[in-house]
Amino acid sequence: MESFFKVKRPEEVLEIIDQFGPSGEEQIPLEQALGRVLSKEMIAPENLPDFFRSTMDGYAVQAKGTFGASESIPALFYVSGEVLMGQAPEMVVSEGQAVKISTGGMLPEGADGVVMVEYCHLLDENTLEISRTISPLENVIQPADDFGQGDVVFKKGRALRTQDLGLMAGFGQSEITVYKKPKIAIISTGDEIVAIDEQPLPGQVRDINRYTLSAFCRRVGAEPLYLGLCPDDFEKLKDMVEKALARADTVWLSGGSSVGTRDLTLKVFEILPDFELLVHGISISPGKPTIIGKSGSQPVIGLPGHVASALVVAEVFLTRLVSRLSGRVDFHSRPQTRIEAELSRNVESASGREDYIRVKLFQRGDTLIAEPIFGKSGLLSTLIEADGLIRVDMNTEGLYQGQKVKVILFDAINGDIR
Amino acid sequence: MESFFKVKRPEEVLEIIDQFGPSGEEQIPLEQALGRVLSKEMIAPENLPDFFRSTMDGYAVQAKGTFGASESIPALFYVSGEVLMGQAPEMVVSEGQAVKISTGGMLPEGADGVVMVEYCHLLDENTLEISRTISPLENVIQPADDFGQGDVVFKKGRALRTQDLGLMAGFGQSEITVYKKPKIAIISTGDEIVAIDEQPLPGQVRDINRYTLSAFCRRVGAEPLYLGLCPDDFEKLKDMVEKALARADTVWLSGGSSVGTRDLTLKVFEILPDFELLVHGISISPGKPTIIGKSGSQPVIGLPGHVASALVVAEVFLTRLVSRLSGRVDFHSRPQTRIEAELSRNVESASGREDYIRVKLFQRGDTLIAEPIFGKSGLLSTLIEADGLIRVDMNTEGLYQGQKVKVILFDAINGDIR
Repeated sequence: MESFFKVKRPEEVLEIIDQFGPSGEEQIPLEQALGRVLSKEMIAPENLPDFFRSTMDGYAVQAKGTFGASESIPALFYVSGEVLMGQAPEMVVSEGQAVKISTGGMLPEGADGVVMVEYCHLLDENTLEISRTISPLENVIQPADDFGQGDVVFKKGRALRTQDLGLMAGFGQSEITVYKKPKIAIISTGDEIVAIDEQPLPGQVRDINRYTLSAFCRRVGAEPLYLGLCPDDFEKLKDMVEKALARADTVWLSGGSSVGTRDLTLKVFEILPDFELLVHGISISPGKPTIIGKSGSQPVIGLPGHVASALVVAEVFLTRLVSRLSGRVDFHSRPQTRIEAELSRNVESASGREDYIRVKLFQRGDTLIAEPIFGKSGLLSTLIEADGLIRVDMNTEGLYQGQKVKVILFDAINGDIR
Repeated sequence: MESFFKVKRPEEVLEIIDQFGPSGEEQIPLEQALGRVLSKEMIAPENLPDFFRSTMDGYAVQAKGTFGASESIPALFYVSGEVLMGQAPEMVVSEGQAVKISTGGMLPEGADGVVMVEYCHLLDENTLEISRTISPLENVIQPADDFGQGDVVFKKGRALRTQDLGLMAGFGQSEITVYKKPKIAIISTGDEIVAIDEQPLPGQVRDINRYTLSAFCRRVGAEPLYLGLCPDDFEKLKDMVEKALARADTVWLSGGSSVGTRDLTLKVFEILPDFELLVHGISISPGKPTIIGKSGSQPVIGLPGHVASALVVAEVFLTRLVSRLSGRVDFHSRPQTRIEAELSRNVESASGREDYIRVKLFQRGDTLIAEPIFGKSGLLSTLIEADGLIRVDMNTEGLYQGQKVKVILFDAINGDIR
């Protein structure tokens, strides 16, 4: 089979992945919508705000009454009342009148500006000296200043952020229609793999990939569904993959690193209904023996057995797959997973394939340094030490010490921003 | 009160926040440990791996038997068997013998290296031609190559990443001891605030801050606990804050933007048991009217009412507070929330305070550009448009067009890494 099927370049693989899409939509409470993806355009149902609001503590007046006022020639106003928070004021402000108002208070009729309390001086209970000229609408937010009724607030496909949820609340949207979260079935294969609560016998290893891939799914906004361990047995694997496709949007196999396990994966995929083999091998290192196919519209993935290779393939290609399955079209978050650093030493690379090198980041003065981590293929410790990956392009023979490189960061957990 | 209490510089505020710590530890299943923080050092309970494993498909041999072998003078070996995956091989490999082995297979006794299948040529069922010299231990991982029994694998205070969970699985740790997730009580205050499923009357606004701050908590790894709306009433607010401190690790108040609400917040804090006022005003914009205190060891926070100001304070200071309450000491994730960009225009700033300017990011050729977003204070739309914040330091009068700036990114949702 392999000989008939050409190893694909990474760009081709990404294009192939772009054919996949979300499996449906659902309504969820606003509280749970962080990171979820809108399946419909969001149109402003009303003006926001919908009344004239003060942005300062001070006095609401007719602005023209302050024209010419200054510290040396203050203007005098009659204090005719106070705006209470959360209520529509009933008074009307006429020329020469001032009404006390707090930040967020509703402007009374007649008033068209607010003088900050710093420029106001009460001479007695009702007499106010104003020592500054304000323009009409100064310190005031108008109706629809944020959004007008009918405005497109969010496009379809937007992944909702912290403040986006605040805006949804402002519009009174307690339920949000979003794409379903992709459900990803994970199967660990290989005769040598045992469950993590078992003591491995000589020749056996614990199921590292299940936990790594499940955590990866959670991190990129998908829901992992673990189906269990499967030995290298055609019938058993076939049953498990069929069950997986009935319960999840996609199935990801990994675990066994032997060539036998890999061959078996492909054999099982090939008898799935409406199966099409899309990728059999990618010209990257690590991660070459990756299989991508589809059964109907459902992607089926065979990952390399080594956890380091599987995680590189996940970072580079399955992040994109999960984005597509999530319905995300808005890549505003794109730069967040890459930062620039300076390479600490030369890195050689074979041309004709894309190399992903694990790097550790540290600060040297003002410069962020990326230090390549080398080690035997198949070691987990190199992944533990690494902060991210750098890519060596297919047509270069390596990277040089001091060169600026883009680091694809592992896990984006918020830290300290100073 | 304000006059007795000096507005604090941001650096002082961060130092004050550093006094807080986690509230305890708990055991959780490994599946749920992504992003959680280890409360104990992790020591390798055994060697990983704990047997000699092949990293390639090929033949296990005594390396010395290949010395001098090349394409023109291949060495001949007798194929005496095959290593089955997941089993300890029973054969012993003596001089001149070769045993078929797959990636991940256990090396048989006597063998000390693996020849890749590419350099092996079967002449008949039992006769193998090897066309390459290998060194001892070539294509083999030794016991403890990843970690040796007793090694410190993770320090206390590490926030667990995707691959860290994989390693825990490799060591058979199905339960992990971590610090408790900080529980943050959120109270929205202010007479003008109504629940989001209500139609606001003129002068009222919906509770935007509750949803914004809850989402913020989730994003930075804390658990929000929403206690409800509170009008500007001393007794009611006091009851609610006391209830909050009984049920959560810290309480965050926000919502009302009037000076009355702010004064009330401080009055309630001051009668809490063992209360100490730590910060009353920070020299930043927006976000100056922030209150930080503690009741015993529990932080109590009064945030500005404007959602934009509250979110800036959260990003700059409460990310650090949540880190401390989470027990995180390892800021390896620090660079992830900042990226470098080029400023698209001049930004003026008053000296004597730190300014946080919202920016939008876009790509111009190879350069990432940060475009400042200006707008009336109190508008939500500026936050919706923004990708992050830039800081203008206290002692500068502004930033210049073309200058490189560090952008503190909002929400770190993984996107596309190409």
